[in-house]
Amino acid sequence: MSRHDDAAAVEEANARFYQAFESLEPARMDEVWSHGDHVRCVHPGWLLLSGWDAVRQSWEAIFRGSAEMRFGITDVDVHVEGDVAMVTCRENILSHARGQIAVTALVATNVFERHDGAWLMIHHHASATLAGDAGSA
Amino acid sequence: MSRHDDAAAVEEANARFYQAFESLEPARMDEVWSHGDHVRCVHPGWLLLSGWDAVRQSWEAIFRGSAEMRFGITDVDVHVEGDVAMVTCRENILSHARGQIAVTALVATNVFERHDGAWLMIHHHASATLAGDAGSA
Repeated sequence: MSRHDDAAAVEEANARFYQAFESLEPARMDEVWSHGDHVRCVHPGWLLLSGWDAVRQSWEAIFRGSAEMRFGITDVDVHVEGDVAMVTCRENILSHARGQIAVTALVATNVFERHDGAWLMIHHHASATLAGDAGSA
Repeated sequence: MSRHDDAAAVEEANARFYQAFESLEPARMDEVWSHGDHVRCVHPGWLLLSGWDAVRQSWEAIFRGSAEMRFGITDVDVHVEGDVAMVTCRENILSHARGQIAVTALVATNVFERHDGAWLMIHHHASATLAGDAGSA
Protein backbone atom coordinates (compact mmCIF):
# COMPACT_ATOMS: atom_id res chain seq x y z
CA MET A 1 0.00 0.00 0.00
CA SER A 2 1.29 3.45 -0.81
CA ARG A 3 1.69 6.22 1.75
CA HIS A 4 -1.21 7.96 0.04
CA ASP A 5 -3.49 4.93 0.51
CA ASP A 6 -2.33 4.63 4.13
CA ALA A 7 -3.26 8.24 4.82
CA ALA A 8 -6.68 7.74 3.23
CA ALA A 9 -7.29 4.61 5.33
CA VAL A 10 -6.32 6.48 8.49
CA GLU A 11 -8.60 9.39 7.59
CA GLU A 12 -11.45 6.88 7.21
CA ALA A 13 -10.66 5.38 10.62
CA ASN A 14 -10.72 8.88 12.10
CA ALA A 15 -14.11 9.56 10.48
CA ARG A 16 -15.45 6.25 11.84
CA PHE A 17 -14.43 7.34 15.34
CA TYR A 18 -16.57 10.49 15.10
CA GLN A 19 -19.45 8.51 13.58
CA ALA A 20 -19.24 6.15 16.57
CA PHE A 21 -19.19 9.20 18.86
CA GLU A 22 -22.34 10.60 17.19
CA SER A 23 -24.06 7.19 17.41
CA LEU A 24 -23.78 7.27 21.23
CA GLU A 25 -23.44 3.46 21.11
CA PRO A 26 -20.52 1.98 23.07
CA ALA A 27 -20.56 -1.05 20.74
CA ARG A 28 -19.56 1.24 17.86
CA MET A 29 -16.56 2.43 19.89
CA ASP A 30 -15.58 -1.23 20.41
CA GLU A 31 -15.06 -1.50 16.65
CA VAL A 32 -12.96 1.65 16.38
CA TRP A 33 -10.54 1.19 19.27
CA SER A 34 -7.76 -1.23 20.06
CA HIS A 35 -8.69 -3.13 23.23
CA GLY A 36 -5.19 -3.22 24.69
CA ASP A 37 -3.82 -2.07 28.01
CA HIS A 38 -1.75 0.52 26.09
CA VAL A 39 -4.73 2.60 24.92
CA ARG A 40 -5.01 6.08 26.43
CA CYS A 41 -7.67 8.77 26.40
CA VAL A 42 -7.94 12.35 27.61
CA HIS A 43 -11.41 13.86 27.34
CA PRO A 44 -11.64 17.66 27.50
CA GLY A 45 -10.73 18.73 31.04
CA TRP A 46 -10.32 15.14 32.22
CA LEU A 47 -7.24 13.43 33.52
CA LEU A 48 -5.62 10.62 31.57
CA LEU A 49 -7.47 7.32 31.30
CA SER A 50 -5.28 4.21 30.83
CA GLY A 51 -6.25 0.88 29.32
CA TRP A 52 -9.29 -0.14 27.31
CA ASP A 53 -11.50 -0.97 30.32
CA ALA A 54 -11.20 2.57 31.72
CA VAL A 55 -11.54 4.14 28.28
CA ARG A 56 -14.64 2.12 27.41
CA GLN A 57 -16.27 2.97 30.74
CA SER A 58 -15.71 6.65 29.98
CA TRP A 59 -17.55 6.34 26.66
CA GLU A 60 -20.43 4.60 28.40
CA ALA A 61 -20.65 7.44 30.92
CA ILE A 62 -20.42 10.15 28.24
CA PHE A 63 -23.02 8.45 26.05
CA ARG A 64 -25.41 8.01 28.99
CA GLY A 65 -25.19 11.75 29.63
CA SER A 66 -25.64 12.85 26.02
CA ALA A 67 -28.97 13.32 24.24
CA GLU A 68 -27.40 14.22 20.91
CA MET A 69 -23.92 14.82 19.54
CA ARG A 70 -23.09 16.30 16.16
CA PHE A 71 -19.57 17.00 14.96
CA GLY A 72 -18.17 19.02 12.13
CA ILE A 73 -14.60 17.76 11.75
CA THR A 74 -12.22 20.11 9.94
CA ASP A 75 -8.49 20.61 9.42
CA VAL A 76 -7.87 16.85 9.40
CA ASP A 77 -4.15 16.25 9.19
CA VAL A 78 -2.65 12.74 8.93
CA HIS A 79 0.95 11.67 9.52
CA VAL A 80 1.72 7.99 8.95
CA GLU A 81 5.00 6.46 10.13
CA GLY A 82 5.14 2.69 9.70
CA ASP A 83 2.29 1.11 11.63
CA VAL A 84 1.47 4.21 13.65
CA ALA A 85 -0.51 7.21 12.46
CA MET A 86 -1.10 10.52 14.16
CA VAL A 87 -4.11 12.61 13.28
CA THR A 88 -4.87 16.13 14.39
CA CYS A 89 -8.20 17.76 13.70
CA ARG A 90 -10.60 20.37 14.88
CA GLU A 91 -13.82 19.17 16.47
CA ASN A 92 -16.63 21.63 15.90
CA ILE A 93 -19.40 20.41 18.20
CA LEU A 94 -22.81 21.60 17.07
CA SER A 95 -25.51 22.14 19.64
CA HIS A 96 -28.94 23.74 19.80
CA ALA A 97 -29.52 26.56 22.24
CA ARG A 98 -32.40 29.00 22.28
CA GLY A 99 -33.38 28.15 18.72
CA GLN A 100 -29.88 28.83 17.43
CA ILE A 101 -27.06 26.52 16.50
CA ALA A 102 -23.92 27.04 18.57
CA VAL A 103 -20.48 25.70 17.73
CA THR A 104 -17.89 24.75 20.34
CA ALA A 105 -14.39 24.32 18.92
CA LEU A 106 -12.00 21.74 20.35
CA VAL A 107 -8.73 20.40 19.07
CA ALA A 108 -7.93 16.69 19.05
CA THR A 109 -4.91 14.45 18.72
CA ASN A 110 -5.87 10.94 17.64
CA VAL A 111 -3.32 8.13 17.33
CA PHE A 112 -3.99 4.92 15.41
CA GLU A 113 -2.08 1.65 15.22
CA ARG A 114 -2.24 -0.77 12.27
CA HIS A 115 -3.25 -4.22 13.42
CA ASP A 116 -3.87 -6.99 10.87
CA GLY A 117 -4.35 -4.32 8.21
CA ALA A 118 -6.91 -2.31 10.19
CA TRP A 119 -6.19 1.08 11.76
CA LEU A 120 -7.38 1.03 15.36
CA MET A 121 -7.41 3.99 17.73
CA ILE A 122 -4.94 3.78 20.62
CA HIS A 123 -5.09 7.36 21.84
CA HIS A 124 -7.53 10.27 21.86
CA HIS A 125 -6.68 13.61 23.44
CA ALA A 126 -9.19 16.42 23.05
CA SER A 127 -9.05 19.85 24.64
CA ALA A 128 -11.05 23.03 24.61
CA THR A 129 -9.70 26.11 22.89
CA LEU A 130 -9.98 29.39 24.74
CA ALA A 131 -10.21 31.44 21.54
CA GLY A 132 -13.48 30.99 19.69
CA ASP A 133 -11.63 31.39 16.43
CA ALA A 134 -7.99 32.36 16.24
CA GLY A 135 -7.96 32.02 12.47
CA SER A 136 -5.46 29.69 10.86
CA ALA A 137 -3.44 29.01 14.00
CA MET B 1 18.44 -1.96 20.79
CA SER B 2 15.83 -3.68 22.90
CA ARG B 3 12.34 -2.35 23.47
CA HIS B 4 13.39 -1.65 27.03
CA ASP B 5 16.33 0.51 25.87
CA ASP B 6 14.05 2.28 23.38
CA ALA B 7 11.60 3.16 26.13
CA ALA B 8 14.41 4.47 28.33
CA ALA B 9 15.77 6.62 25.48
CA VAL B 10 12.29 8.05 24.83
CA GLU B 11 11.82 8.79 28.52
CA GLU B 12 15.13 10.70 28.44
CA ALA B 13 13.98 12.68 25.39
CA ASN B 14 10.77 13.51 27.24
CA ALA B 15 12.75 14.69 30.28
CA ARG B 16 14.97 16.84 28.02
CA PHE B 17 11.85 18.52 26.63
CA TYR B 18 10.79 19.63 30.12
CA GLN B 19 14.34 20.71 30.96
CA ALA B 20 14.28 22.85 27.79
CA PHE B 21 10.91 24.24 28.89
CA GLU B 22 12.31 25.16 32.32
CA SER B 23 15.39 26.76 30.73
CA LEU B 24 13.15 29.27 28.87
CA GLU B 25 15.73 29.21 26.04
CA PRO B 26 14.35 28.66 22.53
CA ALA B 27 17.74 27.24 21.46
CA ARG B 28 17.19 24.33 23.87
CA MET B 29 13.86 23.59 22.19
CA ASP B 30 15.68 23.53 18.83
CA GLU B 31 17.64 20.51 20.07
CA VAL B 32 14.60 18.64 21.33
CA TRP B 33 12.22 19.01 18.37
CA SER B 34 12.19 17.79 14.81
CA HIS B 35 12.26 20.83 12.52
CA GLY B 36 9.89 19.42 9.89
CA ASP B 37 6.66 20.72 8.46
CA HIS B 38 4.91 17.75 10.07
CA VAL B 39 5.49 18.85 13.67
CA ARG B 40 2.39 19.88 15.60
CA CYS B 41 1.76 21.53 18.95
CA VAL B 42 -1.28 22.33 21.09
CA HIS B 43 -0.54 24.48 24.13
CA PRO B 44 -3.21 24.50 26.89
CA GLY B 45 -6.27 26.30 25.51
CA TRP B 46 -4.57 27.09 22.20
CA LEU B 47 -5.52 25.96 18.74
CA LEU B 48 -3.27 23.63 16.78
CA LEU B 49 0.07 24.96 15.56
CA SER B 50 1.45 23.32 12.40
CA GLY B 51 5.05 23.17 11.25
CA TRP B 52 8.28 23.93 13.06
CA ASP B 53 8.29 27.68 12.28
CA ALA B 54 4.92 28.22 13.99
CA VAL B 55 5.82 25.90 16.87
CA ARG B 56 9.17 27.60 17.49
CA GLN B 57 7.56 31.06 17.44
CA SER B 58 5.11 29.87 20.09
CA TRP B 59 7.97 28.82 22.38
CA GLU B 60 9.63 32.19 21.89
CA ALA B 61 6.39 33.94 22.87
CA ILE B 62 5.82 31.68 25.89
CA PHE B 63 9.40 32.08 27.09
CA ARG B 64 9.26 35.87 26.70
CA GLY B 65 6.18 35.91 28.93
CA SER B 66 7.56 33.60 31.63
CA ALA B 67 9.72 34.61 34.56
CA GLU B 68 10.16 31.10 35.89
CA MET B 69 8.83 27.65 35.08
CA ARG B 70 9.21 24.56 37.24
CA PHE B 71 7.71 21.19 36.41
CA GLY B 72 7.15 18.07 38.39
CA ILE B 73 6.56 15.37 35.77
CA THR B 74 4.74 12.28 36.99
CA ASP B 75 2.90 9.25 35.60
CA VAL B 76 5.25 9.05 32.61
CA ASP B 77 4.04 6.33 30.29
CA VAL B 78 5.94 5.34 27.12
CA HIS B 79 4.67 3.31 24.18
CA VAL B 80 7.20 2.61 21.39
CA GLU B 81 6.10 1.25 18.01
CA GLY B 82 8.91 1.11 15.47
CA ASP B 83 10.33 4.60 14.98
CA VAL B 84 7.44 6.39 16.70
CA ALA B 85 6.92 6.73 20.43
CA MET B 86 3.97 8.12 22.32
CA VAL B 87 4.40 9.46 25.82
CA THR B 88 1.69 10.54 28.21
CA CYS B 89 2.49 12.28 31.45
CA ARG B 90 1.16 14.62 34.05
CA GLU B 91 2.68 18.09 34.18
CA ASN B 92 2.58 19.48 37.69
CA ILE B 93 3.51 23.13 37.26
CA LEU B 94 4.87 24.64 40.44
CA SER B 95 4.38 28.32 41.12
CA HIS B 96 4.80 30.70 44.02
CA ALA B 97 1.81 32.65 45.21
CA ARG B 98 1.46 34.52 48.49
CA GLY B 99 4.42 32.73 50.01
CA GLN B 100 2.96 29.32 49.23
CA ILE B 101 3.74 26.84 46.50
CA ALA B 102 0.77 26.09 44.23
CA VAL B 103 0.54 23.18 41.80
CA THR B 104 -1.39 23.28 38.56
CA ALA B 105 -1.98 19.87 37.02
CA LEU B 106 -2.06 19.39 33.27
CA VAL B 107 -1.99 16.28 31.15
CA ALA B 108 0.25 15.96 28.09
CA THR B 109 0.57 13.75 25.05
CA ASN B 110 4.08 13.90 23.57
CA VAL B 111 5.00 12.09 20.35
CA PHE B 112 8.59 11.42 19.31
CA GLU B 113 10.08 10.17 16.06
CA ARG B 114 13.43 8.37 15.77
CA HIS B 115 15.72 10.14 13.33
CA ASP B 116 19.33 8.95 12.87
CA GLY B 117 19.12 7.21 16.25
CA ALA B 118 17.84 10.26 18.13
CA TRP B 119 14.29 10.65 19.43
CA LEU B 120 12.95 14.04 18.38
CA MET B 121 9.62 15.53 19.40
CA ILE B 122 7.06 15.86 16.60
CA HIS B 123 3.96 16.59 18.68
CA HIS B 124 3.06 18.11 22.04
CA HIS B 125 -0.53 18.40 23.23
CA ALA B 126 -1.10 19.71 26.74
CA SER B 127 -4.42 20.48 28.36
CA ALA B 128 -5.68 21.67 31.70
CA THR B 129 -7.57 19.30 33.95
CA LEU B 130 -10.74 20.58 35.57
CA ALA B 131 -10.40 18.35 38.58
CA GLY B 132 -7.56 19.33 40.89
CA ASP B 133 -6.96 15.69 41.66
CA ALA B 134 -9.27 12.93 40.49
CA GLY B 135 -6.99 10.29 41.97
CA SER B 136 -5.65 7.57 39.75
CA ALA B 137 -7.79 8.37 36.70
